[in-house]
Amino acid sequence: MEVYLDNAATTALTKDVLEEVKFVSEKIYGNPSSMHKLGVEAEKVVKSAREKIATSLSVSPSELFFTSGATESDNTAVFGSVYANSRKGNHIITSKIEHPAVLMCFDKLEREGFNVTYLDVDSDGIIDMEQLKSVINEKTIFISVMAVNNELGSIQPIREIAKLKKKYDFILHTDAVQAYTKIPESLYNMADLISLSGHKIHALKGVGALVVRQGTKVNPLILGGGHESGFRSGTENVVGIVSLGKAVEEKWDKERIAELREKLKSGIEENCDVKVNCYHDGESAPHILSVTFNGIRGEVLMHALEARGIYVSTGSACHSNRFGESHVLSAIGLSKNEIGGTIRFSLGKLNTEAEIDYAIECIAMEAKKLK
Amino acid sequence: MEVYLDNAATTALTKDVLEEVKFVSEKIYGNPSSMHKLGVEAEKVVKSAREKIATSLSVSPSELFFTSGATESDNTAVFGSVYANSRKGNHIITSKIEHPAVLMCFDKLEREGFNVTYLDVDSDGIIDMEQLKSVINEKTIFISVMAVNNELGSIQPIREIAKLKKKYDFILHTDAVQAYTKIPESLYNMADLISLSGHKIHALKGVGALVVRQGTKVNPLILGGGHESGFRSGTENVVGIVSLGKAVEEKWDKERIAELREKLKSGIEENCDVKVNCYHDGESAPHILSVTFNGIRGEVLMHALEARGIYVSTGSACHSNRFGESHVLSAIGLSKNEIGGTIRFSLGKLNTEAEIDYAIECIAMEAKKLK
Repeated sequence: MEVYLDNAATTALTKDVLEEVKFVSEKIYGNPSSMHKLGVEAEKVVKSAREKIATSLSVSPSELFFTSGATESDNTAVFGSVYANSRKGNHIITSKIEHPAVLMCFDKLEREGFNVTYLDVDSDGIIDMEQLKSVINEKTIFISVMAVNNELGSIQPIREIAKLKKKYDFILHTDAVQAYTKIPESLYNMADLISLSGHKIHALKGVGALVVRQGTKVNPLILGGGHESGFRSGTENVVGIVSLGKAVEEKWDKERIAELREKLKSGIEENCDVKVNCYHDGESAPHILSVTFNGIRGEVLMHALEARGIYVSTGSACHSNRFGESHVLSAIGLSKNEIGGTIRFSLGKLNTEAEIDYAIECIAMEAKKLK
Repeated sequence: MEVYLDNAATTALTKDVLEEVKFVSEKIYGNPSSMHKLGVEAEKVVKSAREKIATSLSVSPSELFFTSGATESDNTAVFGSVYANSRKGNHIITSKIEHPAVLMCFDKLEREGFNVTYLDVDSDGIIDMEQLKSVINEKTIFISVMAVNNELGSIQPIREIAKLKKKYDFILHTDAVQAYTKIPESLYNMADLISLSGHKIHALKGVGALVVRQGTKVNPLILGGGHESGFRSGTENVVGIVSLGKAVEEKWDKERIAELREKLKSGIEENCDVKVNCYHDGESAPHILSVTFNGIRGEVLMHALEARGIYVSTGSACHSNRFGESHVLSAIGLSKNEIGGTIRFSLGKLNTEAEIDYAIECIAMEAKKLK
């Protein structure tokens, strides 16, 4: 049996998305900018996808801009906001557990002279609103806090942060890659800028979007032919965009995913010496389960499970090959040993109960062997 | 009969590329950064595509970086070079007939205080090397000239420009979107930076590449998890990359395409009152034919042909919807009326002789009617 439990790294296409990808790859090949029929056809499928995605977030289609993925969306949000508003102030805020696509931008801005605050998180992976309130000031022009953390599943208080806009004039960005379709959009769609990714929700890699709420002053990152209302130039990735629209159309069964995760968690806890990170019944995103195995090296367990057809990850795939120790697990206070023993299980639409049963059995066996 | 003669705007996938897209979309869904088998599989197909493309350009795989398309490649090349080398000088050079993905970047840099020279072109759409030699100086840090113009097919003397590097210390970039696979790579691969696009050569939209020759100092445009050796972060667009590799593997039959173009040209000239722009037997790229119809509005002819299943364009698709008059046709000295009467026919791998016969017949009939 093959069990893919690395859905926070990337996902397989569902059957319907795959069919749509095949159809559009073959039949809709016009350039959406072309004025003839084939161009109009391509423009139409892009428009339809834009409407579906906008509706799913309760934003206007004119507020949704397609990008090549969440990394580009994050870069556009951070650099675009900060450079466009640098005359108003030079203080910017983010958290210590953001994705590198956000953190590396802040790092560059810090080297350019911007004053950066990196918010701490507690052991549940949640930022401290009191700390935020104590550092925010008249010079704060931009805050970026992710909606759901990719290694922990912890949900950040985006709504609470947005309330500070009554008093302070800043742009609020949220990387909603792991939140989108997984938790109610009302928990994060009050942000001014929202980054989305296709391949984390069963669409293709190489496509994403950035929501820019009306009135938000943001510079484009990529210039050229003026596509996407001038905000993001470059011929539209029609197949990718359609795959994203289709993936959104198919509903996630959040309850089913949450039940599978609960089952996995209980199964592991019953059979292994572990600590589950940032879980708290229903208060984290339903698809991510971070587990620290005491006295076991995560990498070894990962490969032992791989040999049984079970795919999981240590840390996040986005930087597991390149960075050392997880900055996220470190921020919630895990020791070096605990970080080394942590595995991320992440669920997707395609996982079944039988898969979870098999996974628990294998995890129990392998963990016992390795101990 | 449907005849797609807008291949410079975008292309349909060939049968083999389509099969590869379908296969990879379904089967290779791992994240190339994941350390387990599914990640390794995905990494392997990306590596294989990188090698094929690098080989086709006679560059090293380590010099090839995947992007979301040529617009991103151009932006990275221009901004990345200029910002990384701005201490050495502030003079930058481009031509008046570049793609907006280059021109808009120069425009921004000019507003930031860089000293920009926009080179003229002659009536054949070729830059004047004497003008270039007269303006280049010790402060020149960057030159961007496209290899083949997208509206005319004119081939620029990239090799001649590169020779100036013996005397001056600048980075040479070429947008080779319409050159790649269409003319010998030896005509442009001595540039330090080369932009490529997938969808102009029968691969998917949303993927491209930038060649960065070893030793060239260029800042990345998009930061994050450190993909593409740290030069371009963001999860790799695996399906797009594979489609590009496959498209390159299938050879273009340049002679066949050139013969089809010659046939189309002769057929139109025999039947219509036209002037063919920048042709000069074999001295322009074999797939583009720019024709000015005297006394006819190009847009009207375009739609008349569309009604007969023939798809062509006026100007380039990249900005036909958004900009007014073509800056390219204006630069080669066409009058407003001539520009308005100009149609671009562009050929691809899938065009046949029967299609060209049918196209000539329809063009002759419709042009007569409209006159």
